[in-house]
This record gives sequence, structure tokens and C-alpha cells, in this order.
Amino acid sequence: MSMETPLYEGKAKSVYQTQNPDELRVVFRNDMTAFNGVKHDQFENKGRFNATASEFFMRLLEEKGVSTHFINRPDPDTMIVKKLQMIPLEVIVRNVAAGSMVKKYPIQEGTVLNPPVVAIDYKDDERGDPMINDEIIFALGILNPEELGAVKKAALRINEILSVFFDEYGIRLVDFKLEFGKAKGAIILGDEISMDSMRLWDKRTGESFDKDVYRFEKGDVMTAYRRVLERIIPGFGG
Amino acid sequence: MSMETPLYEGKAKSVYQTQNPDELRVVFRNDMTAFNGVKHDQFENKGRFNATASEFFMRLLEEKGVSTHFINRPDPDTMIVKKLQMIPLEVIVRNVAAGSMVKKYPIQEGTVLNPPVVAIDYKDDERGDPMINDEIIFALGILNPEELGAVKKAALRINEILSVFFDEYGIRLVDFKLEFGKAKGAIILGDEISMDSMRLWDKRTGESFDKDVYRFEKGDVMTAYRRVLERIIPGFGG
Ligand SMILES: Nc1ncnc2c1ncn2[C@@H]1O[C@H](COP(=O)(O)OP(=O)(O)O)[C@@H](O)[C@H]1O
Ligand SMILES: Nc1ncnc2c1ncn2[C@@H]1O[C@H](COP(=O)(O)OP(=O)(O)O)[C@@H](O)[C@H]1O
Ligand SMILES: [Mg+2]
Ligand SMILES: [Mg+2]
Repeated sequence: MSMETPLYEGKAKSVYQTQNPDELRVVFRNDMTAFNGVKHDQFENKGRFNATASEFFMRLLEEKGVSTHFINRPDPDTMIVKKLQMIPLEVIVRNVAAGSMVKKYPIQEGTVLNPPVVAIDYKDDERGDPMINDEIIFALGILNPEELGAVKKAALRINEILSVFFDEYGIRLVDFKLEFGKAKGAIILGDEISMDSMRLWDKRTGESFDKDVYRFEKGDVMTAYRRVLERIIPGFGG
Repeated sequence: MSMETPLYEGKAKSVYQTQNPDELRVVFRNDMTAFNGVKHDQFENKGRFNATASEFFMRLLEEKGVSTHFINRPDPDTMIVKKLQMIPLEVIVRNVAAGSMVKKYPIQEGTVLNPPVVAIDYKDDERGDPMINDEIIFALGILNPEELGAVKKAALRINEILSVFFDEYGIRLVDFKLEFGKAKGAIILGDEISMDSMRLWDKRTGESFDKDVYRFEKGDVMTAYRRVLERIIPGFGG
């Protein structure tokens, strides 16, 4: 718990300025929300589970040459990150049809999408995060075509790395959401990669290991989150 | 009024098979709907005004080399058209920000969009015509990249032709919606081009001459529709 005023208090994380003007402290809180904030609860361990996952995946991506904002994790629920000028887009990559895709379009849940599908929402809670397209992104001046190309390329590369990784651990990366930002002209992965931002299915049983457990009350959500970390992080204590 | 059973009864038009298996009869009814059918009324002359506009614009497009389904208009409210295998997409071209664009994104009504913006909705009333993107169009098998390229190119070419045309008559083509279909592999413009499917503003006064007059109760909608036809069609009797 910090007594400082956060720069920004989001739905699940609080962001603080550090003494270094180029770095932020991101505290992953125990708040869980769904359906654009309509559902809201608190779960012990949630913050540190998601911070643990985010550190783990961002280190993995950095090893493979993808630039992320991750610097270090001084506390279980806290990451120090590069301060970015965030791009107000949610970049969604889908390998398997699920979630809003099957609600909005005539496609069956579980249909494999090959090639994977990238879809982008305009990040704005008040407007309900409406879907956007390339031409509207340009018209609003959010990104230019070259930058959007770089964002999509990074998203697909991240998908490749994470899909191969999860596959080895018996997990299917169904879809996930990324947020990017800019620092000194470069496009850098920000925010989080966690069980909140991915849809993960057990390859054998089809069980969900992600926020859908909370959204659709499929069981104990923290047990699901813990199982992901136990599978992928050697010696994860819990 | 026809005693036959229509092949398809839409929100504003009824479609009948003709004796020629490759041709349909489209009757423009006097029904006006808005907000996905929530608002519904009938207006005398509406069917024939929109059929008149559709014939006029489709002939103009054909002259400029754009393929349309239009064959002839045997009755004021009735068009004979080439039967198409319709593509379930609503292709929207915007020259000026208005309507759903200003509701969904942070852009002021009236902002000029240069280049014009193409946005595509999946045509499905039950799903509320959700916005779609290129990759989802491919994933659903609706069109392949080459076909989608042809659709967008045709939409932009139509925009060029109609924008220049309206400009000469003191009207700003703000945005419009097209539907395409396929016949023998070719992509052909179907449906209608009318005051129902375009947003038209008087260049001088900013007045609406389109369905917004009905949507937002800005005056007498049939007077607005009639004024468009009187301006653009020499000797339009009314
Ligand atoms: N490196 C960064 N620099 C600046 N802002 C960031 C960075 N990484 C993430 N953010 C922003 O911090 C916020 C994280 O808190 P979160 O609870 O996820 O917020 P939200 O409810 O807006 O999604 C988000 O708005 C996210 O865009
Ligand atoms: N050339 C064509 N061949 C086959 N169907 C067509 C053709 N042109 C238009 N249509 C379809 O006919 C219907 C026209 O009726 P409308 O009242 O506009 O219906 P809707 O409520 O579905 O928009 C639309 O579904 C449209 O897609
Ligand atoms: Mg967030
Ligand atoms: Mg229609």
C-alpha cells in the first residue's frame, strides 16, 4: 500500500511516478473487473500473480528481441517500467474464435483462425472500447501507416513466441490483448501480459485458466491463475 | 402492390423473382426505419423518390464505368436488377465525420476526412450490424483479399464520382453506405443509392437532405428528399 497519489488509477493497476522521470512504478492491485466494470471483485494474490506473469512473459519477449517496458519487479505485485506515451488502442490477437468474436459474428467458438486475426479497439472506457479500423486510426491521428504496421508486426511476433511457449506446457493461447506505447519514437510493448489479458485453454481438457473463470463463474479464478504459473515457472512457490 | 410472395422482404424494399432467373424486381416501399428498426413510419412518395434516386445514380455510375445491378425502372417505385449473390457487408465511405463515427470516436462532427475513410459493417440485423475488419472478413470466408480490394476500390471510385457530382449541385456528400454482390465472379454494386443510404448536407446552409431529417426529427423528411431530386434531376416533376 502506498500513500502517494497515483499518476493514474486504472481498473486493475495503479501507476506512480518514480524519482526517475523516465520510469514508472506499476502496482498490480487485487481488483478484478469484467464487462467494462459492471462486475467487480477483489481476490487475494491476484495482483502478485499477474505481476509475476507479466515479468515472466516480458522477459521471455525481451530474450527474443521484442522491446517491452519492463525494467524490474522490486515487490511481488510491483513492476518498474519505462514510462511510455501510451497509444490508446487495444491490440487483440486471436488464434481460436472465442469471446466477443463468436458473439458478434457467425463463427463457432473453438474454430481455429489460421492465419491469426488481429483486431483493434479504441481504448476508452466511457465509449465502451469500440472496435476501430486502420483508416479510422489514421483519420484520428493515433498512428501513421508505418507505426500501425510496426504495431501489428510486433503483435503477431509476440503471438508466435507466446503460442509456441504455451503449447509446450499443454496450454492453448486462444487470444490476448496488448497495449503499446511510444518512447523516443520507438514502439514498445507496455501494460501487462497476464491471465487477465489472455484467454488460455488446457489443450487436453479445454478448461479455462483465465479471466473467463471469473466472467462466467466457471470455478475458483485464483486457483486457475495459480495453475498457469505453476505449470510454466519452474519452482513457482505459489 | 403485388400479390406475389416476395423472395425477400427487407426493412424498406421487397424483392421478387422475375420470369428471367437472372433478374429480380425490387419494389421500394414507403417504409422508413431507423436505429435498426426501433423507429418505423410510412411516408407517401418515399418508395418512388428512392427508386428514382437509385436509377439516377446507378446510370451515372454505369456511364463512368462502374458495374451496377440496375437494368430498368418499369414503375416509379420498381427497379429490375441483375440478381446477385449478395455479400453480407455494408461498405461505408465517409468524407466528413458524422453519425456513428462521432458517437464512437473523439472526432468532431463536420471534420473533413482526407483521404476519405472506408469502414465496413457485417450486415446482420439480429447482431446489430457490427463493425468488422479485413482480417475477420477473410477469417469468416466472406471475401478473399483480392475481392475485398476490388470492393474498396469500387467504393472509393463511386465516392469520387458522387462527390464531384453533388458538389456541382451545392450538396456535400458526407457519407454513404453501399452493398455489393457477385455475379459470375464479378463484384457488382447492388441495393440502392438513395437519400436513405447517403448523408447529404447543403453546402451553404448545412441543412440535412437525408434520413437524418427523419432520425432526428429535423423537419419534413419527404420535402428534404424531394429537394435533392429537384436539384439534381432536370425537370423532376415531383
Ligand atoms: N509503460 C507505461 N507508461 C505509461 N502508462 C502505462 C504504461 N503501461 C501501462 N500504462 C497504462 O497504465 C494503466 C494501467 O492500469 P489499468 O488498471 O490496466 O488501467 P485501465 O483501467 O485503463 O485498463 C493503463 O491505462 C495503461 O494504458
Ligand atoms: N441485385 C440484388 N440481388 C439480390 N439481392 C439484392 C440485390 N440488391 C439488393 N439485394 C438485397 O435485397 C434487400 C433489399 O431490401 P432492404 O429493405 O434494403 O433489406 P434490408 O432490411 O435487409 O436492408 C437487401 O437485403 C439487399 O441486400
Ligand atoms: Mg488495463
Ligand atoms: Mg437495406
